[in-house]
Parts: sequence; structure tokens; C-alpha cells
Amino acid sequence: MNKYTIGLDFGTLNGRAILIDVKTGEELATAVYSYNDGAIEEVLPDSEITLPPNWALQNPVDYLGVLKYTIPEVLKKSGVSSENIIGIGVDFTSCTILPIDKQGIPLCMKEEWKHNPHAWVKLWKHHASEPYANQLKDIALKRKEKFILRYGGKISSEWMIPKIWQILEEAPEIYEASDRFIEAGDWIILQLTGKERRSACNAGYKAIWDRKEGYPSPEFFAALHPRLKNVVKEKLSTDIFSTGLKAGGLTSEMAKQNDLKEGTPVAIGIIDAHSAVPAATVTKPGKMVLIMGTSTCHMLLSKEQKLIPGIPGVVEDGILHGYFGYEAGQAAVGDIFDWFVSNYVPTSYKKEAQKLDISVYRLLENKASKLKPGESGLLALDWWNGNRSILNNANLSGLILGLTLRTKPEEIYRTLLEATAFGTRMIIDSFVNDGLPIEELYACGGMPHKDKLLMQIYADITGREIKVASSHQASALGAAMFGSLAAGSKLGGYDSIEEAVAHMASCEDKTYLPIPKNVEIYNRLFAEYKQLHDYFGRGNNQVMDRLKRN
Amino acid sequence: MNKYTIGLDFGTLNGRAILIDVKTGEELATAVYSYNDGAIEEVLPDSEITLPPNWALQNPVDYLGVLKYTIPEVLKKSGVSSENIIGIGVDFTSCTILPIDKQGIPLCMKEEWKHNPHAWVKLWKHHASEPYANQLKDIALKRKEKFILRYGGKISSEWMIPKIWQILEEAPEIYEASDRFIEAGDWIILQLTGKERRSACNAGYKAIWDRKEGYPSPEFFAALHPRLKNVVKEKLSTDIFSTGLKAGGLTSEMAKQNDLKEGTPVAIGIIDAHSAVPAATVTKPGKMVLIMGTSTCHMLLSKEQKLIPGIPGVVEDGILHGYFGYEAGQAAVGDIFDWFVSNYVPTSYKKEAQKLDISVYRLLENKASKLKPGESGLLALDWWNGNRSILNNANLSGLILGLTLRTKPEEIYRTLLEATAFGTRMIIDSFVNDGLPIEELYACGGMPHKDKLLMQIYADITGREIKVASSHQASALGAAMFGSLAAGSKLGGYDSIEEAVAHMASCEDKTYLPIPKNVEIYNRLFAEYKQLHDYFGRGNNQVMDRLKRN
Repeated sequence: MNKYTIGLDFGTLNGRAILIDVKTGEELATAVYSYNDGAIEEVLPDSEITLPPNWALQNPVDYLGVLKYTIPEVLKKSGVSSENIIGIGVDFTSCTILPIDKQGIPLCMKEEWKHNPHAWVKLWKHHASEPYANQLKDIALKRKEKFILRYGGKISSEWMIPKIWQILEEAPEIYEASDRFIEAGDWIILQLTGKERRSACNAGYKAIWDRKEGYPSPEFFAALHPRLKNVVKEKLSTDIFSTGLKAGGLTSEMAKQNDLKEGTPVAIGIIDAHSAVPAATVTKPGKMVLIMGTSTCHMLLSKEQKLIPGIPGVVEDGILHGYFGYEAGQAAVGDIFDWFVSNYVPTSYKKEAQKLDISVYRLLENKASKLKPGESGLLALDWWNGNRSILNNANLSGLILGLTLRTKPEEIYRTLLEATAFGTRMIIDSFVNDGLPIEELYACGGMPHKDKLLMQIYADITGREIKVASSHQASALGAAMFGSLAAGSKLGGYDSIEEAVAHMASCEDKTYLPIPKNVEIYNRLFAEYKQLHDYFGRGNNQVMDRLKRN
Repeated sequence: MNKYTIGLDFGTLNGRAILIDVKTGEELATAVYSYNDGAIEEVLPDSEITLPPNWALQNPVDYLGVLKYTIPEVLKKSGVSSENIIGIGVDFTSCTILPIDKQGIPLCMKEEWKHNPHAWVKLWKHHASEPYANQLKDIALKRKEKFILRYGGKISSEWMIPKIWQILEEAPEIYEASDRFIEAGDWIILQLTGKERRSACNAGYKAIWDRKEGYPSPEFFAALHPRLKNVVKEKLSTDIFSTGLKAGGLTSEMAKQNDLKEGTPVAIGIIDAHSAVPAATVTKPGKMVLIMGTSTCHMLLSKEQKLIPGIPGVVEDGILHGYFGYEAGQAAVGDIFDWFVSNYVPTSYKKEAQKLDISVYRLLENKASKLKPGESGLLALDWWNGNRSILNNANLSGLILGLTLRTKPEEIYRTLLEATAFGTRMIIDSFVNDGLPIEELYACGGMPHKDKLLMQIYADITGREIKVASSHQASALGAAMFGSLAAGSKLGGYDSIEEAVAHMASCEDKTYLPIPKNVEIYNRLFAEYKQLHDYFGRGNNQVMDRLKRN
């Protein structure tokens, strides 16, 4: 009898389940649930409360909707019996946190707090904690805290402690009312198993926790704010679990609701991007995984711990056991293309796309494919959502340069693709310059399967071959793979990630190879990108920061 | 019996005639003729010959079409008898030049040359002569030629000598075949009167001619290219006439064709922007006239000759007799707004505009009006068509900075308006810093009557009151005023421009006053603009230039 695992993948706008054959990696069914409230950036749901700039919230009710809808749906679609589901894995966006009460109920789901924006889930791209992140960094540097070196000398506004500090300062009543603050991914594990099993992946990358060093000291937290002194003891937890382990068994209530067996093993949660690494077949150093979607994450394994300026995270066992896992990222990639395609394409192009029965995206890609590198004379800095890696500054903003009266939408579109590739090259070069070689790139996520031009541009700009993971849902597949580890070989799963990769993951035959004459042109353009990157990003001209504060 | 003059105004996309009552300034009729071939920037008419980047040509047949159609049309519309038309004035874009044969026939109208792009009219915005302009400047500086100081130390690619030099280098057969090179405005005077009467305005601003110094020496021209040594004697003319004079009387052929009286006085031609100065009521120093259309020209009168870096032209008697006329300019203004509105506004906005029964322009203006200065966090450099004044570099290009995923079309639109106002302020500040005070601004051209937001932004950014000329066709009105000078008082016209202004020109009651709190914000933003202007424009980072050459 074949055995199966379910991977649950919680993204920015929706959540999904996939059901995978553990022996073959075949995906038998998938189901997607779109969050009713999506990413909440302007008005709090069912209210007229408007949010300040740079806020991004979510509604945990949407996460529960994913469980309720997608698990029964993949069972139904696949016809697989719950008897043969041997494990469940979960991946989640991060750092996405929420305040909960003693019973684990999110404060925003309680009548008394639902009108307070700080009671809601703070989504990863909530950047309004920027001032707290900056102060935290300044204080850590002043106190010569060792931990800051693990994060490339910077702390992102996206991370847990700045977000908690923002709550304390701006809504102390929420801080006091909350029993704990928890990553949404860990909260889902709590829902499924009834157990709080915080993930080392979440804690290591986003909450300044380290396997050897633990959290920063109470003295450090007290230096931020007296009330934060015991934040770890009072609001977090020091019980932190490695990915690949079993978190617990499915509760009877969850089993009933989801048509599953009580006690089905559930894996420790993992961040969505990190989950994709084994799904892209990567279990060794020298191979960088790019998870390309609304934003891009860059993952690299190494036996060595190097502290690389501007690379926000290196966590021991953070991705796979036995390796230091490095994470870098670009805060907006697909989001930039969406911004452009949704708002800045003329009606004539829409009509042309309709006539050809293709999407506006495809039309732009077709037109942009006909341009030679550098032909448009345009160059952009890809900071529409700030810069997460290398500069780690959420106040940086996008720039387009080289505009003329002849500039066409497809030229701008191509320039935006290139800009994000230059951003990735900045990250690769930082790793390589600091002694972590990168030979190959492995791409997964929403874009690599459909955007051929994008992938060729990435190959040309990085000068490296790019392989593409076969799965269109690498994070979810990774979660299902971790589900097979939670089950273990006794139940029909696996005891090592390499075994799981061998059976469950693969790459496509078609790869993208750099085209030498494009590489040459893009090397010149990258030198221009780098000069602008440093001019606007390293303090020569902090105009972007000043404009945001105007 | 009332007396009338006709003003003929040749623009970038069309030509017009207006018929004006000399006593009251009342505009009795106007007629517009759109050039069939418009501005030729991609393919030569009736051919498959494509033009390289930065080319812009015109077809002189279109100019003849303007005469044939518009003059009879305004006579017909107004019911005025040709007996009472006492003078004709002509204004034209510049520097717009063409090669002609001995009979004055444009080479491009001759079968043997019509397939050679260099035989056609080179429109003012033909920028492909840039390399020649740069070499000319370098050689002039090396030879310490005094004339270069009159042009702020730079020579524009738009001007006559670089354009002629380009023809010599790239199509020597055209250079040899042409009897003369002539400004299109002077060519129209030749058509109307049968006499070649080159205008001091054209020659002074665009052909390096000076009333006292004449043209550069044959030695200088030989240093450019041996064949250019006698270009003035062989291909131009040293007979140069001041504006305000009579060029001659209408030929019998032209009189017949246009239903006018033979011998009707025709004024010496003038550049379109310069023609607008008296039409905006300005005949004294301290009042800058802005002619705001696809591009903007800035005109200032002074009793003093100052050599201001980056201000491309100061010509004695070049605008009005008895004054040094200063001309500065921005190479694209309305063109930038058009570029954006035509290509980068989403279908939803078009539908919204249709629903409200307003243009997309008005919709964007309405939305942009609701934004506070600085609110969007955006800043732009207005160099979509290069920078004409202060930096005088056609290879500069447009820049937008501060883009985020929340950036909306109306925010970019407003930022583009602001960028052009910052460009104007750079010019004003240069004049003022070099000792030419500017108290008031007078606006005319296509935009000031309809774009209230634009005018308020200009007042706020320049910190100056702006008056708006009553005429919607200031250049054409100016031409008609010069027509009244060509007629003189004996025929019912005037003997001085002040008299003509007193009768024929006026400003609107509504003026635009700077709003102090906006002025304060814009002063801060202008400091940012200036820093970027200098960084990209003064050699710190010549990325725009390099990208154009890629």
C-alpha cells in the first residue's frame, strides 16, 4: 500500500495543501484557500480604522480556513484514505507573528481587542517597526553584543523583536494582555497538535536565537525598554525544536475536522523559503536555492560559519541538520512586476494581449524578449519594498534611470526584471567574496516555470547555470518531505533528508545557461548598478530615507 | 475701418494662422493645419528607411500646406477683406534647418534626394548631432574662442552648426548638393516675399552669430573640418536682419494663392518662443516669460550682457530691440506628461475618466491635487529629452526615485509636474545668482490655461507670482504684433513694440501666488533635486551618458 504525506504551505495571500506519494514524489492533489482578508495594508477588516504607511497585517481566521478547507479537499480529490497519510509538514511565511492568550487564542479574535491593529497578526512585510529595529541595532552595537554579528550587523524591521517592541511602545495594553507572542507557523503547529513547539528555523532566523547562545540577555532587553527585560521568559519560550523532528500527533479535534487519523505525526514548522531547499534537491554546500515569488529568498548551506556583512541570517541546523544555513533575501521581486503590470500598462497593450489570447505578462515578456541587454538605456534599483540583504534598510526605495520620451512599457518591464537579478548578484557576490563559493543556482517558486526571459536574464546576470525544481510548489513539497521525516521509516517515511530528496524531489531537464555576449554587457551594467547601489545605499546620499520621512 | 494683421505660427506638429484686430488685440479667427508627416522620428515618409535613435525630421511640404490652408481659412472665418490685412508676421520652431538648392527648393522635395534622410528638414529636437556639438565645443574651448562664452560654455546638439556638420560627415553628397542651409522660419519668409532675409533671432540664438562679432572665423570652421572653412560664405549668409523690421512684401504668386494683396508687408521671422514675450506683455527686465508646451522656453530681457554658465543664449536685440535677450530652456515638459499619460495609465483610470466625462489628464490632475507636496516620497529629474539649460547635455535622461509598491499613477504624474518646476527653478536661480533679478513670471503656451495644479506647483516651487498671458496662442499673437510693426503706423500698425503691447496684448486677472507652507516643503525637496542634478549632471556619475552609449 502506498504511503502519503500532506504539505501545508501558508503564503502571503493564500494557503495550500498538497498530497504527495512518499515513494515517487508524485503530487496527487493540491488545494488552495485564498485568505478572505489577504494582506491587510489599508483598513482593518470590518472597521473604518485605517492603517499608517508600512503596515501589513493578517487575520488568523484565514489560516484556520486553510486547514478546514484544503486538507479534506486534497483527500477527496486524490481518493487517498486517511489511513495512508503518514505525516504532515507545515511551512509558513516569516517573520509573521501574533499575540495570543493563555489558551492560544489570538487577541484579534477576541471582541475586546479586535479594533486594535496591534492585536492582529503582523505579516512579514509589516515594516512599521523600522525605528525599533534601528534602535535595537544601535544599542546592540553600542553594547558590543556578539549576536549582531550573526545577522550581518543589522536587524530587520521584519523580525520578531522589533515587532514586539513596537507593540509595547504603541499599544502597551496589547503587550500586557498577551500571554505570548508566537510565529504564525508555530501557532499552526499548536493548533494541529495542541503543543507549543517553536521551530529553530523561526527562532534562529527571526528572533535572534542561537542553538549555543540562546536569546540575547535580559540586560540587553532591559536596555531596549525596562518592560522588555524578561520578554523571553514572559512572552516567548526557550523550548526550541529542530526542523526534521516530530512536533506531536494530530489532536482528536483536528483529526475529526480534517478527516484525518488522530495522532498523525506533524513535523516541526519551517519557514516557507527554507522548506524549498530540499524540494529543489539541494542538501549540500555550493548550490544556492532561489525561491522566487512576490519576494525572493536565497538559501545556502555550508559546513562553516562565516559572518558576512549584510547577509541577515546564519543559523546552525536552521535549514538542514548538520549545516549552517544562510538566508538572504530581496523584499520585493514579483511584487514589483505586479505593481508595474497592474498599474502602468496602457489599454492598447491589454487589447493586444486579449487579441492574442495571452496575459499582459506574456505580452510584455514577448516584447521584452526582443530587446537586447542594455538596448533600452534604462537601469533600476529594485528597492520598491526596501532592501533586505546587503543594505538591510527598509527605507530605501525604487529608482528608474535612463528614461526618455521613447521609453516603452516593455523596456521598463525588462529593466525591472534585470534590476531584481542585479540585486541577486549583489547577494551572490557578497557570499563569494567572503569565501562561500556558489557554483550553481536552483530556482523554485512561482516564477521560474513561467518566466523564461526572467530566468535567462538571471543566468546572464549572475553568470551561472540555473536549474529549476520540478515542483511548482516547492515549499509545500518541502513541508511534505519534512512530514515524511516526522513519520520516520517505521511508518513508511524516511529517517534522513537525503533519502526523502532521492524519492520525492527532482529538477527539470531544461536548465538556463549564461549567454557569453549577454554576460559581457550585463557585467558593465552591473558595475553601474553597484555604483548606484552604494551611492544611495551606503550613506553618500540618504535622499530615499529623507523623502520617506517628509 | 479696422485694420488687422495675420500671425503665422509653425509648431512641432502643426501650423496655425490667427487674424488679430490691431486696435483691440481681438482674435477674430484662427485656423490650424496638422502636418501630414508630423515629427518624423522612426521611418522616412513613403519609404521603408528607418531612422536611427535621436533623429527628428520634418517635411517642408507640410509648411506649405499651412500657408495654403490657414490663411484663406482665417479670412473666410473672420469675413475680413484682404484690403484690411496690413501685415503678416511669422514665428517658427528653431533650430529647424533644411538644405535648399539655388531656387530655394528643399532637397528632400527633389526626386534624386528624397530617399536621403539628410535631405530633409532637421527638426529642433533632432539630437543625433550630439557628437558634433561636443567636438565643436571642445575645439572652441581649446582655441579659446570668445563666442563660446555667449552660449554659457556649451553648444547644443539642436543648433545649426552641429546639424550642418553632421550632414557633411554623414552625407557629404547632400552637403555638396545644397546651395544653402537655412532655418525653416527664414525659408518661409523666402516663400512669402521671394527674398532671403535671415533673422537675427535665429542666427543669434542658434547659429553662433553676433551683431558685433559676426560668425566664428573661417579658421575656426576649418578646425572642425577643412570643408567647413567657408561654410558661412558658401552655405549661409551674412545678411542678418533684426526682428521688428519688414522683410518684404508678399509676392504676387503668394498673394493670389492666399487671397491676400500683393505687397502686404511681411515681418522678419522670429523663433516661436521669442515671439511670445511681447504677447505676454513683457517689454522690460525682471520679468521672465515661460512658454510652456511640449518643451519650455524661458525668456528674459536685460540692459546688461552677462555670461551665465549653462544659459545657452544671450543675443543683443535678439528678442526686442534695445535689450539683451536671454533664452534658456527645458527640452521636454508637456512631452514628459504626454509620455506618461499615453503609456502608463491603467485602463481603470481611463474608464473612470470616461465615466466622469473628463480627460485622463483632468482625472490625474484631480487625483494629484489631493496630494500634499512631498507626500508621495517621490522625486524625479526632468531629463526625458536631455537637459538644455544649465547642464546642456542631450545624453542626460529621466530619473524617478522613491518608488514603492504603493506608488500610484497620480503620484508619479504629480512628481513629473514638480520635476519640471524644479528644472525651471534651477534656471531662475542661475540668473539670479549671476545678478539678473527675476521678480515675476509670465506664463503662456499650451498648458497655463488648463493646468491649474501645474501653475500652482510652479508658483510654490519658484516662490514667485505667476501671471498668465490672456492669449491662448501667444507665439502667433506675437507674430501678428510683429506684423503690425512691419506695417508701421502709416498703414495703421505701430512703430514700437510698446505701442503694439498696449493695444494687442494682456494678462488674465487670475494669478498664481506661492502658498507659504508649500514653499517651505518644496525648498527642502529642491535641495534634494539639486543634489541629484549635480551628481548625475556635473560629472560625478556619468551613468546616463554611458547607458545611452551602451
